[in-house]
Amino acid sequence: MRIDIITVLPELLKSPFEASILKRAIEKGLVEVHLHNLRDFSIGNYNQVDDYQFGGGAGMVLMIEPIEKCLSGLKKERDYDEIIYLTPDGETLNQSISNRLSLKGNLILLCGHYKGVDQRVRDKFITKEISIGDYVLSGGELAAAVLADSIIRLIPGVLNDETSALTDTFQDNMLAPPVYTRPSEYKGMQVPEVLLSGNFPKIEKWREDEALKRTKKRRPDLLK
Amino acid sequence: MRIDIITVLPELLKSPFEASILKRAIEKGLVEVHLHNLRDFSIGNYNQVDDYQFGGGAGMVLMIEPIEKCLSGLKKERDYDEIIYLTPDGETLNQSISNRLSLKGNLILLCGHYKGVDQRVRDKFITKEISIGDYVLSGGELAAAVLADSIIRLIPGVLNDETSALTDTFQDNMLAPPVYTRPSEYKGMQVPEVLLSGNFPKIEKWREDEALKRTKKRRPDLLK
Repeated sequence: MRIDIITVLPELLKSPFEASILKRAIEKGLVEVHLHNLRDFSIGNYNQVDDYQFGGGAGMVLMIEPIEKCLSGLKKERDYDEIIYLTPDGETLNQSISNRLSLKGNLILLCGHYKGVDQRVRDKFITKEISIGDYVLSGGELAAAVLADSIIRLIPGVLNDETSALTDTFQDNMLAPPVYTRPSEYKGMQVPEVLLSGNFPKIEKWREDEALKRTKKRRPDLLK
Repeated sequence: MRIDIITVLPELLKSPFEASILKRAIEKGLVEVHLHNLRDFSIGNYNQVDDYQFGGGAGMVLMIEPIEKCLSGLKKERDYDEIIYLTPDGETLNQSISNRLSLKGNLILLCGHYKGVDQRVRDKFITKEISIGDYVLSGGELAAAVLADSIIRLIPGVLNDETSALTDTFQDNMLAPPVYTRPSEYKGMQVPEVLLSGNFPKIEKWREDEALKRTKKRRPDLLK
């Protein structure tokens, strides 16, 4: 898989891709992530990439021309499965969208900033609009990092058994049950006895019950 | 405002807080963000902070003792309004939660990793559990960065007029209307004429209509 991220703030995205699971996935050659600075495609003498919005009002808007220049350079090199714009009014990201995107080959992620991008970019070039949740961020960069992380960890070979995705919350529309680790007693707080019993069918049953209990209490909507 | 983030991967969080709006908010003294490496509070000879889960199964779990050591050091220094654990089974973040948290003084954000933290940490120390959305990430770090960004940009003085939060999507349970910037015509694609008209009451009306149309089409749930 290859992910190209277009942003006015590539430096913001540096460290998330240089740590932990994302770093290892890149080192193993399972995914390539390329950051593109929109300013490299700026126009005029002032390296302009954004401008005031027509009709007045607060907030700068990313211009169509630098974005088109960047996109057409990339599209000349290879085919892309999706050109995704991260925006709070996009389709709300969930695990099944991440699952599906993890099967793709090449993705472009476009990060908005301030008031977003010129609507003509969305109408003409974007194939999918995604929101990571019902809140506003300073820009699309963290949203792109979140989307990339949620996808990349699902690529076969990225996670080892230690970190298996199969027992994750949401993979079966259920929240995960409580987990405990050593010590079995800490300042009077005990681990549930069943987990120490070695009786694995009983442990399995307890986990299913707890997962269901937690889902019913916290997220009954997932059970519908 | 002061935000303390407890993580096993402080290096992952470096660049988001060193760029753009978060950086400026920190430089202006409007917010302090402190990253704490959980490994500095590890136990035993192996700098242990996580262990296998009781009852078997894939995935490491963060231990209670290093977390308690880190938390109690912080709580000795000052009072905290909330100790927040980022977890996919927490309350789903939305703009009104971010609005409310932006009025607080001191927050601790605890990032889970792999399978999460020992349940006793959640039962005993955590005052609020937040999920940034219905998808799983490699760890709580990006979720903490997202939460911090959504809060910090709302602190008075962080955004200037250019980037005002008042006209954002979600602030009035509506999606934002389309935005356009120069040029008014690009390869045959025109900006809607009304935006070039200079007739501000008409522009205002157009924006309200478009916002409503977009919200009805994409997120009718917000209008309920």
